[in-house]
Amino acid sequence: MTDTKNTPPTFGRYPILDRVTLPADMRNLSVDQLRQLADELRAETVDAVSTTGGHLGASLGVVELTVALHSVFNTPDDRIIWDVGHQAYPHKILTGRRDRIRTLRQPEGLSGFTRRAESEYDPFGAAHSSTSISAGLGMAVAHHLRAEDDPSYSERNVIAVIGDGSISAGMAYEAMNNAAVAGPGANRLIVVLNDNEMSIAPPVGSMSNYLSRLLSSRQFFNLRDLAGKFAKRLPSKIERTAKRAEEYARGIITGGTLFEELGFYYIGPVNGHDMNQLVPILRNLRDADDQGPILLHIQTEKGHGYKPAEAAGDKYHAVNKFNVATGEQKKAPAGPPSYTSIFSRELMRRAATDERLITVTAAMPSGTGLSDFAHKYPTRFFDVGIAEQHAVTFAAGIASEGLRPVCAIYSTFLQRAYDQVVHDVALQNLPVRFAIDRAGLVGADGATHAGSFDLNYLCCLPNMVVMAPADEIELLHATATACEYDDGPIAFRYPRGSGEGLTLPEQGEVLPIGKGRIVKESNVTPNQKSGVAILSLGPRLNESLRAAEELAAQGLSVTVADARFAKPIDTDLVETLAKRHDVFITLEEGAIGGFSSLVVQHLAETALLDGVKFRPMAFPDKYIDHNTPAAQYEEAGLTAPHIVKSALSALGNAPTSEKQA
Amino acid sequence: MTDTKNTPPTFGRYPILDRVTLPADMRNLSVDQLRQLADELRAETVDAVSTTGGHLGASLGVVELTVALHSVFNTPDDRIIWDVGHQAYPHKILTGRRDRIRTLRQPEGLSGFTRRAESEYDPFGAAHSSTSISAGLGMAVAHHLRAEDDPSYSERNVIAVIGDGSISAGMAYEAMNNAAVAGPGANRLIVVLNDNEMSIAPPVGSMSNYLSRLLSSRQFFNLRDLAGKFAKRLPSKIERTAKRAEEYARGIITGGTLFEELGFYYIGPVNGHDMNQLVPILRNLRDADDQGPILLHIQTEKGHGYKPAEAAGDKYHAVNKFNVATGEQKKAPAGPPSYTSIFSRELMRRAATDERLITVTAAMPSGTGLSDFAHKYPTRFFDVGIAEQHAVTFAAGIASEGLRPVCAIYSTFLQRAYDQVVHDVALQNLPVRFAIDRAGLVGADGATHAGSFDLNYLCCLPNMVVMAPADEIELLHATATACEYDDGPIAFRYPRGSGEGLTLPEQGEVLPIGKGRIVKESNVTPNQKSGVAILSLGPRLNESLRAAEELAAQGLSVTVADARFAKPIDTDLVETLAKRHDVFITLEEGAIGGFSSLVVQHLAETALLDGVKFRPMAFPDKYIDHNTPAAQYEEAGLTAPHIVKSALSALGNAPTSEKQA
Repeated sequence: MTDTKNTPPTFGRYPILDRVTLPADMRNLSVDQLRQLADELRAETVDAVSTTGGHLGASLGVVELTVALHSVFNTPDDRIIWDVGHQAYPHKILTGRRDRIRTLRQPEGLSGFTRRAESEYDPFGAAHSSTSISAGLGMAVAHHLRAEDDPSYSERNVIAVIGDGSISAGMAYEAMNNAAVAGPGANRLIVVLNDNEMSIAPPVGSMSNYLSRLLSSRQFFNLRDLAGKFAKRLPSKIERTAKRAEEYARGIITGGTLFEELGFYYIGPVNGHDMNQLVPILRNLRDADDQGPILLHIQTEKGHGYKPAEAAGDKYHAVNKFNVATGEQKKAPAGPPSYTSIFSRELMRRAATDERLITVTAAMPSGTGLSDFAHKYPTRFFDVGIAEQHAVTFAAGIASEGLRPVCAIYSTFLQRAYDQVVHDVALQNLPVRFAIDRAGLVGADGATHAGSFDLNYLCCLPNMVVMAPADEIELLHATATACEYDDGPIAFRYPRGSGEGLTLPEQGEVLPIGKGRIVKESNVTPNQKSGVAILSLGPRLNESLRAAEELAAQGLSVTVADARFAKPIDTDLVETLAKRHDVFITLEEGAIGGFSSLVVQHLAETALLDGVKFRPMAFPDKYIDHNTPAAQYEEAGLTAPHIVKSALSALGNAPTSEKQA
Repeated sequence: MTDTKNTPPTFGRYPILDRVTLPADMRNLSVDQLRQLADELRAETVDAVSTTGGHLGASLGVVELTVALHSVFNTPDDRIIWDVGHQAYPHKILTGRRDRIRTLRQPEGLSGFTRRAESEYDPFGAAHSSTSISAGLGMAVAHHLRAEDDPSYSERNVIAVIGDGSISAGMAYEAMNNAAVAGPGANRLIVVLNDNEMSIAPPVGSMSNYLSRLLSSRQFFNLRDLAGKFAKRLPSKIERTAKRAEEYARGIITGGTLFEELGFYYIGPVNGHDMNQLVPILRNLRDADDQGPILLHIQTEKGHGYKPAEAAGDKYHAVNKFNVATGEQKKAPAGPPSYTSIFSRELMRRAATDERLITVTAAMPSGTGLSDFAHKYPTRFFDVGIAEQHAVTFAAGIASEGLRPVCAIYSTFLQRAYDQVVHDVALQNLPVRFAIDRAGLVGADGATHAGSFDLNYLCCLPNMVVMAPADEIELLHATATACEYDDGPIAFRYPRGSGEGLTLPEQGEVLPIGKGRIVKESNVTPNQKSGVAILSLGPRLNESLRAAEELAAQGLSVTVADARFAKPIDTDLVETLAKRHDVFITLEEGAIGGFSSLVVQHLAETALLDGVKFRPMAFPDKYIDHNTPAAQYEEAGLTAPHIVKSALSALGNAPTSEKQA
């Protein structure tokens, strides 16, 4: 009996796909049938994403690869790790999730990335780039050790699929550097380098140039080449050593020398859309006795097979809902300008008169709002590729010579460069400006992309100044302030999405460092102590004001202040708030331990903590799944009703045990 | 007039060195004189370090390079960046710090690393590895931009000296990947690859193998080669392109193809102890119009020129004070076993019966206490090189397959893998065990090596369990607990140096997760509320007990508890302490915002915070310079007298404004 609720709307349209519920259903299909399956899978992917929006381009580029991998390898026992994981929509359709594919990135729906909790076919979750080779090597090594201990444990293949953009990150190199010396466990590691000459933006760097040369200098393999190259099996270890020595002598002419130097057996490039090539090669790799580590270099086209995507500049990297026939995307409802664009606006204004301003991005020129800067000041703009560690220390080097670097990195990705922030920037007190976009909860990208921890990992650092503007006007000010601040490192964090729609002043103002502002004054006369103080950091200010209205309606006097700075805190303001109120609430869009801990410490040192009911409000101790940002903040317990509840509870007007509003 | 106080004890022994106060004094010396200067500099370095202890081997390996660089380049305008910086002792002697060289690593003395605040000849501080190419590229780019804006600003050369161990780190690769595409600013970047086939331990990984092949396959350049290769100047851009095409065709035979692929102009290998080679090559590089980015590959010997160092297995990487004539090192005073060895002991005990235990280190097998494990269980031990990012995600991959990885990384170096801890381990709730050595303040290695932030950056992560044993017995328990815990990630942090000298039980016990223990019970009857509670995390427990004695002597009732877990906190214990005492002190060896913030939050949620004087004690908001650990903790304000003061102050028996005890 069919559960009609879960039957996909396209059921009946795809004769082969309809018969494939799990990869096992594909393993008796002919190559011709697999090719047809790929066509059907592509159509289904387009249809599904047209109803949800999401990362389409990358998925379309790997449709054939997805089919080939699952038909050749014994998934889920064999492991496929999709680097980044946003290209895994076809993989999800083929691995038992077709009935839910139209819930992608929707509340309660499938994740837009791979996720262990979602399927045994997702052996390693991803979302940040360049983790797949490390994880895959760990798995391969583990399989080998387990098989050694337990003869009944079968060896498994591990396939890490990584893009040419992602391979520029240091951790991919670290993993490759380790793979060939990690022992026999690595023998069943296959890295598929999916080269589409495109990450989100075109990839940059020497590795990218190198791959382009490899592609242009070589013909694709044809079947005869392959037969010769493999002779059904890969060469044995001794033959491989000889083979390597020979290729070594011939140098670059055989291609892939760089990978060979790193100890990989290089095969490629192969047309990643040609099932006639992919399937036999992958079968050979699977059946080889002593196969790895292997690097299989395939060339694909982002957006392949769907005309509107192929024609688009970004190859439909990430799309809204769209019309399948025309490719026309639904416009996002017109809203106020994004925080990103406000940052860009003020940066551009200042760059016009300050030639010391330099910008640095790690492969996100558009996402971080630096595209305008890049166009107008190309010599002052540096896209270093997916390389956050280098980006930060590179900026530190620039700062050490008296220029003013602005390093624009999402909160979640700045985690990649934490040691560089600590050791190269903060400890040396170098004036690097960190423009931290996507702070707080980020909506459909979910927990992997949330900017939940930057206040924790930055506020603990001596020398570091941390701002969190409450709205887009404040972001103008924060940008201006950071650009002008030369005394040490300074960071300003702001959320994904639109501002409040406020009328913007002509330009940002340079703010005094470590000073907040009172936004709503309590009606209590000085020297009296009563009511509630809400010290808000960042865009929760609106919720704070809403909460204040509600509390005032209940007869309470309420002061609302905008901290502006998470560090240094405004000690005068903090002391005043503590002295004049019964309850003191701090509010921040991050995990506990960031801003509020500095406030607590100061209150404790001044003994003011003893006379006030202090209530820090921050994220709960859990990862919050993809959803609308509003729903996420509701789940986080950081809306106006939560604030009201916390205040009333502290005042003894509500039970303290209930934590949900 | 000579300031006798600052005259080095060896003054008068070295005819050339005595005349060199600053590099400018060397620039008219002949190559023969430079060679003699190097010999004198080596002797002075040995003599100085014999009185201070420190990183000797690396410094001895670069004596000739140091002399050659400063004689050829126009320092400090030209920038020399010493990667890691522990090899910079000869550099310090030549750059105006000879009179203080015998204060190396001593309280108030010179840092054991390069440091911007110490000298204009230290343009970029270091201590963690692999930052130099990024920083140097940033400087080179900044020079170029400044010169474009200001014709009076002269172009400068930037020289980054990096070891073969350090170049295996991802960020070095990220920097190299960016250098060739970073525009004309990179033209004056020279990377000197100092290849001694040795970092702290022998380097591992494919890059290391590759470098060995390069060295063994090539003769050193002789002067005639050089003359031919350079023809006084490096080839122009067009000639270089042709040259590259030619080398490209010849492949590996010219050597350095891997670096050429990354866009560097490769020169080498060159004997790094031969002044006749170094000086002319460096002059050519300096005088070339269009020179970079260049990779100059030199081969050196760690410990070179000092027989006892050359003969030692670790080449005197880091030594105690020693006898210059014999090389005999002063034994460190016999003390209790180190925390590191206690961890190792328990790990070995468990590994004997648990074949699922796997260990991972990032180039620190000995420092992290994994050497015994490596010898006994070589197939279960993985040294991935200086590659903390890969180490963590590799461990995550192992954990995902049901084995039990123990990832042993110093607190300060785990910062390098923060995103991997967040995204690959904690978010997926994978049971990776983090053995975090060198937590807290670390003595002579100073602020760059302090483990000050791990509680901050780990306690904010959902799923993460964090332990901080109070002494070596507790470390046994923590190790046992971590090894047995399969429910998610778990970290245990412990300090550098010796334990308390306690008699150890046969084996560690598996502790209940998130439960602390009361160590000293207050003499107050239940239901009474009075006195002071001290909730200590980690080895401050002893200071807490001392403080308790002092407070008891003053008639106060005091409870001392050992939190054991920074996360999850023991909510029962916290509530009990808050209910029964007037003052509640938390103590942790880390920056504010880690453990204490979780305690505050719980107290606030239960309204218990309102009835107790809460005082979090943590590191002050500053970097603490190298010193004895005891002096550092004194400076941090975390000794028994500070605790007493804090308690009395909270009780109103002392002024709150004075923060120093």
